[in-house]
Amino acid sequence: LAFNTFGRIFTFTTWGESHGPAVGVVIDGVPSNFLLDLDFIREELERRRPGKQGTSPRKETDLFEVLSGLHEGKTLGTPICFVVKNKDRKSGDYDTVSHIYRPGHADFTWHRKFHHVDHRGGGRSSARETVGRVIAGAVAKLFLRTKGISIGSKILHIGDQLVTDENSPEKLALQAKHENDSVGGMIEIRAEKVPPGLGEPVYDRLDARIASALMGINAVKSVEIGSGIASASMKGTQHNDPLSSDGFTSNNAGGILGGISNGMPILTRIALKPTPSISQEQNSINHLGQPAKVTVKGRHDPCVALRAGVIAEAMLACVLLDFFLLNKMRRW
Amino acid sequence: LAFNTFGRIFTFTTWGESHGPAVGVVIDGVPSNFLLDLDFIREELERRRPGKQGTSPRKETDLFEVLSGLHEGKTLGTPICFVVKNKDRKSGDYDTVSHIYRPGHADFTWHRKFHHVDHRGGGRSSARETVGRVIAGAVAKLFLRTKGISIGSKILHIGDQLVTDENSPEKLALQAKHENDSVGGMIEIRAEKVPPGLGEPVYDRLDARIASALMGINAVKSVEIGSGIASASMKGTQHNDPLSSDGFTSNNAGGILGGISNGMPILTRIALKPTPSISQEQNSINHLGQPAKVTVKGRHDPCVALRAGVIAEAMLACVLLDFFLLNKMRRW
Amino acid sequence: LAFNTFGRIFTFTTWGESHGPAVGVVIDGVPSNFLLDLDFIREELERRRPGKQGTSPRKETDLFEVLSGLHEGKTLGTPICFVVKNKDRKSGDYDTVSHIYRPGHADFTWHRKFHHVDHRGGGRSSARETVGRVIAGAVAKLFLRTKGISIGSKILHIGDQLVTDENSPEKLALQAKHENDSVGGMIEIRAEKVPPGLGEPVYDRLDARIASALMGINAVKSVEIGSGIASASMKGTQHNDPLSSDGFTSNNAGGILGGISNGMPILTRIALKPTPSISQEQNSINHLGQPAKVTVKGRHDPCVALRAGVIAEAMLACVLLDFFLLNKMRRW
Amino acid sequence: LAFNTFGRIFTFTTWGESHGPAVGVVIDGVPSNFLLDLDFIREELERRRPGKQGTSPRKETDLFEVLSGLHEGKTLGTPICFVVKNKDRKSGDYDTVSHIYRPGHADFTWHRKFHHVDHRGGGRSSARETVGRVIAGAVAKLFLRTKGISIGSKILHIGDQLVTDENSPEKLALQAKHENDSVGGMIEIRAEKVPPGLGEPVYDRLDARIASALMGINAVKSVEIGSGIASASMKGTQHNDPLSSDGFTSNNAGGILGGISNGMPILTRIALKPTPSISQEQNSINHLGQPAKVTVKGRHDPCVALRAGVIAEAMLACVLLDFFLLNKMRRW
Repeated sequence: LAFNTFGRIFTFTTWGESHGPAVGVVIDGVPSNFLLDLDFIREELERRRPGKQGTSPRKETDLFEVLSGLHEGKTLGTPICFVVKNKDRKSGDYDTVSHIYRPGHADFTWHRKFHHVDHRGGGRSSARETVGRVIAGAVAKLFLRTKGISIGSKILHIGDQLVTDENSPEKLALQAKHENDSVGGMIEIRAEKVPPGLGEPVYDRLDARIASALMGINAVKSVEIGSGIASASMKGTQHNDPLSSDGFTSNNAGGILGGISNGMPILTRIALKPTPSISQEQNSINHLGQPAKVTVKGRHDPCVALRAGVIAEAMLACVLLDFFLLNKMRRW
Repeated sequence: LAFNTFGRIFTFTTWGESHGPAVGVVIDGVPSNFLLDLDFIREELERRRPGKQGTSPRKETDLFEVLSGLHEGKTLGTPICFVVKNKDRKSGDYDTVSHIYRPGHADFTWHRKFHHVDHRGGGRSSARETVGRVIAGAVAKLFLRTKGISIGSKILHIGDQLVTDENSPEKLALQAKHENDSVGGMIEIRAEKVPPGLGEPVYDRLDARIASALMGINAVKSVEIGSGIASASMKGTQHNDPLSSDGFTSNNAGGILGGISNGMPILTRIALKPTPSISQEQNSINHLGQPAKVTVKGRHDPCVALRAGVIAEAMLACVLLDFFLLNKMRRW
Repeated sequence: LAFNTFGRIFTFTTWGESHGPAVGVVIDGVPSNFLLDLDFIREELERRRPGKQGTSPRKETDLFEVLSGLHEGKTLGTPICFVVKNKDRKSGDYDTVSHIYRPGHADFTWHRKFHHVDHRGGGRSSARETVGRVIAGAVAKLFLRTKGISIGSKILHIGDQLVTDENSPEKLALQAKHENDSVGGMIEIRAEKVPPGLGEPVYDRLDARIASALMGINAVKSVEIGSGIASASMKGTQHNDPLSSDGFTSNNAGGILGGISNGMPILTRIALKPTPSISQEQNSINHLGQPAKVTVKGRHDPCVALRAGVIAEAMLACVLLDFFLLNKMRRW
Repeated sequence: LAFNTFGRIFTFTTWGESHGPAVGVVIDGVPSNFLLDLDFIREELERRRPGKQGTSPRKETDLFEVLSGLHEGKTLGTPICFVVKNKDRKSGDYDTVSHIYRPGHADFTWHRKFHHVDHRGGGRSSARETVGRVIAGAVAKLFLRTKGISIGSKILHIGDQLVTDENSPEKLALQAKHENDSVGGMIEIRAEKVPPGLGEPVYDRLDARIASALMGINAVKSVEIGSGIASASMKGTQHNDPLSSDGFTSNNAGGILGGISNGMPILTRIALKPTPSISQEQNSINHLGQPAKVTVKGRHDPCVALRAGVIAEAMLACVLLDFFLLNKMRRW
């Protein structure tokens, strides 16, 4: 029931505020004697790093230290603790807004729940926290890779514009930034070569856990599996995936039937809302309930979808590894 | 980690196969000394009962027995066990298809996971299991009601047709049945007067848990919160909900910010795929992998959305009550 | 976090009050396709049944019904629900004491926690609840048996008298009964052929979980592993178990080192307090805090140790099966 | 199910090997806005620090850094991460024995479970890990103190010698050291002013959780509650604690009835085995199963009981705080 722990067997616990000294993650339930490719983990972190075009100019070098769980590069079977220092803290940027709730942000709800006014405290709701998820996801991917399972993602559209060769996600996001606005986006995440049998009905189903993992990412407002929202408009004759001796001949199910993987690719999509931080004046109230105008300064992504792909992949990887381990116990 | 247990503090465990002697639910974590209105639970069960127009003609009287946890009508604080007998079993209907995987069904994945060929065994993936969810949800609603929280749902569209005064969901569903087909649907679920502060970031967020609860219902293929999938196409200036001294002036967030309720109505939508059982011949394989044709006989809803509303409400009620109890611990 | 659920992978949930209509258990996490020997379960229930010499004269026939989870005698991998009706309820016996706290009983604490005055409600603290434990334990034993693991127990002493060929436990217990008194006892439980490697340090250790499982049995006031309490008085040269090429040459560790099984027999002992129900007048108070005398009528075991062996074995079996399943995940 | 996480609501997760760069703890479920007295935490760490007379000469300065969860000294309600560097690593001391199993140590079982030969890897089973427990326990004590609950411990005997004014624990432990031996000990832990009602029957009972928490401490081989092992030899007339209008007039129950606190002091005792590391030659085998002699060098406590009191108190404090928070949910 630890609120900052994700997973059941392969678990990870993140800690750290964006404006504190460091963020980190403790990964537990890791099989022992596995040689961990730390370079791959660094590459994954680089994928989520802001400071690239179209994303927040804040620089995070994201160098990690491993404080436990490895000996001569191999997993011990004990918890692995990664720590990443927060080097580039500029909390001054936030001062002017600190007692006014920023629309679309968690300031209001954190205040109601935890009774802090100063939202530097609420820094857990920052994207900075996802460093730990990406690290855990990279570890999970390394394990899954040895079973042939791979995970990738792509951005389908940014705002109402489809991503194409000419319209890169970065270009589309910058358009919003130039209007002092932000924009949402849609990402597809896909896992290939997932064996059939993963998922534990009826309350720890694969689809339910994926939905939880992805909806729990900041800014995600919908999760679809397979044909997703379109399924509501379909007929049974269209939606049912026929079987041939070569397997399923379509994948409306998105690789999941009855909460269990069916051997087809796992296919899921998430909608991300626009970054709530925008440089335009907005109506709000302060913590005393009085009307106030707020303009959010600081360095912000105009579009969180740009770097959410690696985070969503990470969460999916952790879910799949967890179910892979759980499924071992179903065989006597 | 019990796979058939839902929730963390207010929990319920369902058991029973659709073709076994009974189904039931054990509800735990119930505050004591609460007078339970059993008639309300019966009414909720009646709402999910098939056998009405447009739904499966199978009759389930759904009379329950309470075997524990109540004394003179009041909760003891101990587990409450409800048992509902399966009176109307006709497993004969299933015999012809029993070793051919029915497209869109969980037969294939249950076989791969649990190694049963006879899908009478796999009866946990039947809608019959949801009797327990509806009972637990009714209990949760009774508690929430005393805090002023209410939960309702409505069907937005059936297939590609909007529900209107003229086009009732039942009528639209029957159209599909007359074509020997089935059809999907979209449901909105809404909770009113939810206090701010419910949800436990960063991995037990309210939105993440709702997504899990709803995606875990059979046939659900997408879950949206607030403006949901539309958020991906929006700008920050459109999506951010401004605050005034009277509270939020719009609800794109669907009542949740940073994984915590914000005091606005909780708003969520689910897309349900068409019932996979259709009376037309479909291509499939048998359990030996040989091609086979299958026509699903038996009594089937042409549209699962017709009675999924009460199930979705039940899951949302259980999630909200759970977080309500959890939130008590945040105050020292 | 379900309070009435035991275990992590192989789990069971008990429900039912001693004075309600039935007690039962829902067992989850059971590997599928396992032929379950129901006769063995009946034999185990017979071992815990009161009504034999030296134990409570209350007759419990303990016939169970299986309502789910089995198909043609084999496990489906779904929850197995066992129900045992309460046939021999005589709540009248309890009436005279119902608002006076019985010394040594849970009346006082259940009232303080759950705010019931009538202790018929508190019937979960009755030994009757252990029916479910014995059933779950019998299921676990059947699985463990296929791996060669067996579990047994014996009573070492009753009160201050050693059990011998001449002094059977029943005979010693009857002596106390003849004095209108009750008496405690000490039981040793032993598991043979447990493979090394079971247990998950550092907080889900085998010894910690055994301690929890056994201390959680009514009336147990101490749990020892291996040389137990005597270890405190020993020197390292005495206590350390040397290793030879044939394995350990002694077993002060009781089969557990660092919270992990070492391949030697698991050896544990529990001390049970005397049955608190005695036919002598005792000083107490009523629920208003006023002094009152109480003499407990009804049918009571003079010594709970007589039938606690099978319950303790059951709990140990469930713990071992759980760790056996968990250990499968440690191998990649 | 995170194996290195303890607790249900107030939880802590420890990480770190004794021969790695650091050890640490992440504490979650902490109520927000609580001013944390870090000096008290330092004092508690000082109590467990080795290097005092009669304990291991290894010097651990145990200076911690707080990396998250606090803002201006107050809890944020987010996870608090404490890191303690390992400054005084001398792994050379261990080299000669590294492939021979040390009797009484976890080398053998860690090898069987995790497949490491080099026991530097297995450093989680070291007493060093308890730094995190003491920190979490100190945090819990600070919360409990505001409700008037206090926790203390004393050493009752060392080996077969009672602790007296003349015979301090340190003096008795040194006697064993002079004989190149080690010695066990018995500790009593006591919590005062615990309110009635803590504990969640029937599987999350207060006594069961205490047993788990204490048996999970290295070297503990028995846990007793109240009159403990002596209960087995008692009659009901002796053991039952009578009630008067002033409350219980004796405390054989050790403050717990039916798994729930009864308002009397919680009283528990643990037996600790002698430190397995001794400077005498012992019979063992190496990891290939060949007979070998082993003499354990390095710096070792002759008696782990000397500094186990503060660890046991810490575990008890965490258990009590957890149940205190859980109990809030029982009131509707």
